[in-house]
Amino acid sequence: MRTVFHEKLDELTVQLAEMCGRAGLAMKNATRALLDADLSVAEQVIADHDRMVAMRAKAEQAAFALLALQQPVAGDLRAIFSAIQIIADTERMDALAVHVAKIARLRYPDRAVHGEASDCFAEMGRLAVGLGESARQVLLTGDPAEAARLREEDTEMDDLYRRLFGLLMNPAWQHGIPAAVDTALVGRFYERFADHAVEVGRRVVFIATGTLPPEDGISTY
Amino acid sequence: MRTVFHEKLDELTVQLAEMCGRAGLAMKNATRALLDADLSVAEQVIADHDRMVAMRAKAEQAAFALLALQQPVAGDLRAIFSAIQIIADTERMDALAVHVAKIARLRYPDRAVHGEASDCFAEMGRLAVGLGESARQVLLTGDPAEAARLREEDTEMDDLYRRLFGLLMNPAWQHGIPAAVDTALVGRFYERFADHAVEVGRRVVFIATGTLPPEDGISTY
Repeated sequence: MRTVFHEKLDELTVQLAEMCGRAGLAMKNATRALLDADLSVAEQVIADHDRMVAMRAKAEQAAFALLALQQPVAGDLRAIFSAIQIIADTERMDALAVHVAKIARLRYPDRAVHGEASDCFAEMGRLAVGLGESARQVLLTGDPAEAARLREEDTEMDDLYRRLFGLLMNPAWQHGIPAAVDTALVGRFYERFADHAVEVGRRVVFIATGTLPPEDGISTY
Repeated sequence: MRTVFHEKLDELTVQLAEMCGRAGLAMKNATRALLDADLSVAEQVIADHDRMVAMRAKAEQAAFALLALQQPVAGDLRAIFSAIQIIADTERMDALAVHVAKIARLRYPDRAVHGEASDCFAEMGRLAVGLGESARQVLLTGDPAEAARLREEDTEMDDLYRRLFGLLMNPAWQHGIPAAVDTALVGRFYERFADHAVEVGRRVVFIATGTLPPEDGISTY
């Protein structure tokens, strides 16, 4: 029989996975808003963030209550300790999707991104959604090997981010300065989204093994 | 007489304050590297981040050990719970200083920023260093009124950030696309640095009062 403590810890894990799933969905929709200049989708992503803020508060209260309820040890303590960090990562992922949506909204009815950069963002969106889904799954399975694999998915994101800056730094860039600024910032939002998903993976490895994998270095941009 | 637990909790608080102080110093130096195109200062900021990563790991271990040592209640539990979040914020502040330094290094021997944007960054640097110092101090004093005041300091940063985007979106911008991209990203790094300092303040309010102030909304950019 599961104790009340373990039932509540399981509930918290499910909440974290749900937050991660919502952040992934937000980035999926934000990418659509960006590429299609779809105002209503952008507005929806922005409005939905309130729900994520509420989920964060609820998850933090749950983690706090678990520590107050019982003195957890070993794996249980690692799970709660890591949850506190993962909560912040997942809310941030959602906030980054909101940033993408806000740039789409700012430029509506025009598209914020153009030409080859749009192709990059389609691909970055696909990767971000995949990373969000992987993070959600490893939260539920707790599988450290799968969790460590998120870093590999992120290297593709880094490659795309570099490709984007190659476009921006090329004298042939013909979309003007506001589009260059939007492109640089949106690129950064995707790249940071992926970093937070990788961070969730690192914490899942820690929960499972007790060892936190080293951080990645900081990219040039 | 202080118990071992409280001595260790005090030590952790001092570590957090030290991390915050180091992040503030890093941003001070990164701003100098940016405005003066000073390569050696930029390199130093970048190299010093390893020390911050090590401090983060040590502080996380200390927080974990405190939870394993004793079942803390009330204010003590809030302090450790919040420390876990503050550790991530302070390391991120340092990472953002590294990002500024990396852009200075990327453009060396040229300056990465120009004209009125440089004036903005001088001011943003001053504000960031002030916010870092305020965050350091409130960590040590635990004063919730002072901690809440960090948000007011941040509104100045937000104003500067908007002013910067005004410059970038003005057709009179004459520094080209790479400088526009650098300016947008560097502006974002300062703005995020300030957000993390405000976040430290929010957590200090929570430690002192048991109530977490609401989050700020997400800016347009």
